[in-house]
Amino acid sequence: MLDDKRNQIIAAALRRFSHFGIVKTSMSEIAEDIKLSKANLYYYFQDKFALIEAIAYQIMDESDVAIKQALDEIPNTLDTLVRMLDIKKEYLEKYYMLIINLQEMNMNEERWIALSKKMFQREMDTISKIFERGIKRNELVTFDVSSTSELYVALMRGLAMFCDHTIPHALVDRDELDKIIEKQKQAAAIFINGIKKSTNS
Amino acid sequence: MLDDKRNQIIAAALRRFSHFGIVKTSMSEIAEDIKLSKANLYYYFQDKFALIEAIAYQIMDESDVAIKQALDEIPNTLDTLVRMLDIKKEYLEKYYMLIINLQEMNMNEERWIALSKKMFQREMDTISKIFERGIKRNELVTFDVSSTSELYVALMRGLAMFCDHTIPHALVDRDELDKIIEKQKQAAAIFINGIKKSTNS
Repeated sequence: MLDDKRNQIIAAALRRFSHFGIVKTSMSEIAEDIKLSKANLYYYFQDKFALIEAIAYQIMDESDVAIKQALDEIPNTLDTLVRMLDIKKEYLEKYYMLIINLQEMNMNEERWIALSKKMFQREMDTISKIFERGIKRNELVTFDVSSTSELYVALMRGLAMFCDHTIPHALVDRDELDKIIEKQKQAAAIFINGIKKSTNS
Repeated sequence: MLDDKRNQIIAAALRRFSHFGIVKTSMSEIAEDIKLSKANLYYYFQDKFALIEAIAYQIMDESDVAIKQALDEIPNTLDTLVRMLDIKKEYLEKYYMLIINLQEMNMNEERWIALSKKMFQREMDTISKIFERGIKRNELVTFDVSSTSELYVALMRGLAMFCDHTIPHALVDRDELDKIIEKQKQAAAIFINGIKKSTNS
């Protein structure tokens, strides 16, 4: 019941944020949308940022389900990473308006940094799982999984910012998305080849 | 003679920019430093940005000499790339004040983008040379040198921006430099391993 209300609020906030932008959406409007008192809304979420966090976690949970499925279905490490990039692309397209709106906000707050760290950590954990499985299956050489996953995620994220070879920028141009994902796939192939056990050994 | 004057101006500008910052340095001050009339200075450089460009080209030329030497001395591809990263570190340290000052300026101008593109292209050309040599020496597999060099440079640059795993930022913290170069070396090793001919074949 309590969770139900919480989910209703998140859904309403997501709708508002996606259509009108985060900056232009007020907490009152979200409350009105689901016929909730403003006080009641604040009981669940102390401010707009708490709502953004909740949405971010929900999107991560959602994509984790898709990734878990890929892990079950695809034994090969590179194919799993390629599938992950496709899932990422799907989510970037689905929540594109939201991502653009996030960029309009001040990105230097402590809470932003904390959330970004958590998102990075979560991606790293997924990559670690994939790498560990690859080592167990004797497909990859043994290496420090934690630092290698960290490197992989940082490389992939950084690549997205340098796709047009000029001044780095966060992902804004939807038309670039295909190109970015394509390059990330290319990079993933070279990376995995670099930590793969030699087939001739 | 004409080049001499030009070089004097570049040297004076570099000194001023490094010590007082680009924003705080006026064209008049640079002219005064080398006892040149302001009109004469503008004959050589139409504005401050033209001076920044000239400095950027000079630094690139300077580091190209060091890279050429490395190419002559080091036959192995990965060792050459590691040496390149060390050279880069040296230059970043040497011109650190200048780089910080550049960040204070508006980075979205067309001329900035054009200069950034040229710098990217130049780095790509160097990496292409190293890769081509590696293929010729039968150390690397045959691949599309141009797109692979592009990918390598974009990966390395992007990695520098994600070193602390939070919100990406341009290189500002000098204390992070060692860590960034270390990670770039790690990434270079995996990348080269990924395009290396198998030793068992």
